[in-house]
Amino acid sequence: MIREAHAQRAGGGDGGELSVAVESKGSEQGAPAAEASVDLVTATDKACEELIIGTIRERFPKHCFIGEESTFAGGGAADAPLELGEQPTWIIDPLDGTTNFVHGYWPVTVSIGLAVRGELVLGVIFNPLLDEMCVATKGGGATLNGRPIRVGGAAGVGEALVVNNLGASRNPAMNTLATARIGALLQASLRGLRNSGSAAQNMIDVAAGRLDAYFEDGFGGPWDVAAGYVIVHEAGGVFRDHLGGPFTLRAGKGQVLCGNAAVVEDIARVLRSVEPGGGQARG
Amino acid sequence: MIREAHAQRAGGGDGGELSVAVESKGSEQGAPAAEASVDLVTATDKACEELIIGTIRERFPKHCFIGEESTFAGGGAADAPLELGEQPTWIIDPLDGTTNFVHGYWPVTVSIGLAVRGELVLGVIFNPLLDEMCVATKGGGATLNGRPIRVGGAAGVGEALVVNNLGASRNPAMNTLATARIGALLQASLRGLRNSGSAAQNMIDVAAGRLDAYFEDGFGGPWDVAAGYVIVHEAGGVFRDHLGGPFTLRAGKGQVLCGNAAVVEDIARVLRSVEPGGGQARG
Repeated sequence: MIREAHAQRAGGGDGGELSVAVESKGSEQGAPAAEASVDLVTATDKACEELIIGTIRERFPKHCFIGEESTFAGGGAADAPLELGEQPTWIIDPLDGTTNFVHGYWPVTVSIGLAVRGELVLGVIFNPLLDEMCVATKGGGATLNGRPIRVGGAAGVGEALVVNNLGASRNPAMNTLATARIGALLQASLRGLRNSGSAAQNMIDVAAGRLDAYFEDGFGGPWDVAAGYVIVHEAGGVFRDHLGGPFTLRAGKGQVLCGNAAVVEDIARVLRSVEPGGGQARG
Repeated sequence: MIREAHAQRAGGGDGGELSVAVESKGSEQGAPAAEASVDLVTATDKACEELIIGTIRERFPKHCFIGEESTFAGGGAADAPLELGEQPTWIIDPLDGTTNFVHGYWPVTVSIGLAVRGELVLGVIFNPLLDEMCVATKGGGATLNGRPIRVGGAAGVGEALVVNNLGASRNPAMNTLATARIGALLQASLRGLRNSGSAAQNMIDVAAGRLDAYFEDGFGGPWDVAAGYVIVHEAGGVFRDHLGGPFTLRAGKGQVLCGNAAVVEDIARVLRSVEPGGGQARG
């Protein structure tokens, strides 16, 4: 569905009504249709999620599902660790990078993670526009389109191409802190900063060594990172919170910093240096 | 050459020695080879430029060329307007997004502009990894893979997906200002911020309405924007400096803000608000 929408925009394909979300931007008229786009994104999101859940459920009728559009299991307070039951649980983001999708920008992914007895054991991230599929199983390594991948070897922030997502927050205090963090990284002479707008895309790129690290304070929910958690680990990376502390998969928004262990520790050091209050204590 | 290097990394293709620049990152060993990469990027840059210039020169032996790797015409002080002679002059960036190229990240472009009697009349930008070719001629419109494109319709910063390049500067004062600008855009509730690392890629995406505006204070040289200048104009956009003043094609580094007229003016207003000294006077 996602690829068809993009293909129609690019001049080919047979996208059907879902492509309207993309077509509404950058048309000959140049007129945006923000409300219509939001509705259509939601429709695409739901349609993709139903397709994914339906397909898995046919084969595994007793499994549980946690998705951005509908939560069938799990729960707890948004800032508490995600509660996962005994049943295998699929954690799904059917369309990560929704703003990109509306605009026709390329970082748009489908992210599927699987937890068994509370432990994440499988991750799959697919970008239908780049036709890239990233797969990892716990202990089995990570691949991109079938080829083994590994995180990059940057030794510290000075060698690191770092990706962050910016602009989604409407909270002035969060934005001030986000800006301070970027300033600190620039002063620490990071090699370059990228922003793609898709958490799952960022983790493909970190796992494949195209980007050295990804950090975000306030990603949307466990569906954004469940697959990437397995993929980055299996590609030789580590997963921490944005200040270098232990990573927690929460029911709601979360914090992440991932990449190779050395670059993660060095970036965490820089990010702690601008943390209000006790951030310095860990430095 | 660029595509082959990427294809080999992704598991196929027959890249030859130039692919080593990409392979050296994210390899099984995870060991970076920064110096070797820099040499190989330069080699790829030069090989692409020689191929492009050689091909054009066969057909137009009297034309002039300005390229990132070698300047055959034009000149003047870096901060003065670029001097263009009477002869048609091709302004070429054979490999825009070199850091991305080294890392295997997708925004890597070839940018070719043509000035006739001092006026930019033709722009071509090609991303070999996405297989997307953007072409515009003055008065003839702009196309992406043969299909007409048009800038987005965002009415102001609040509806705008904005792209900027960050992290290339090692100047603390410039970095402080860059950070302040991002802070101001976040406080103005921009829809989202993206950083791709390729000026020419950003202008394809602005012209195609995937991104609403691109701004940069300190892009590398006229080869970064010559093609995009024609493409964005022909897609219905405007080209200004980052504060909304007239755009000047300089021999050295430059400033740009482009998109539809309304969004450019609104973003310029926000950027002027944090300008040291007289920036407010124009606001």
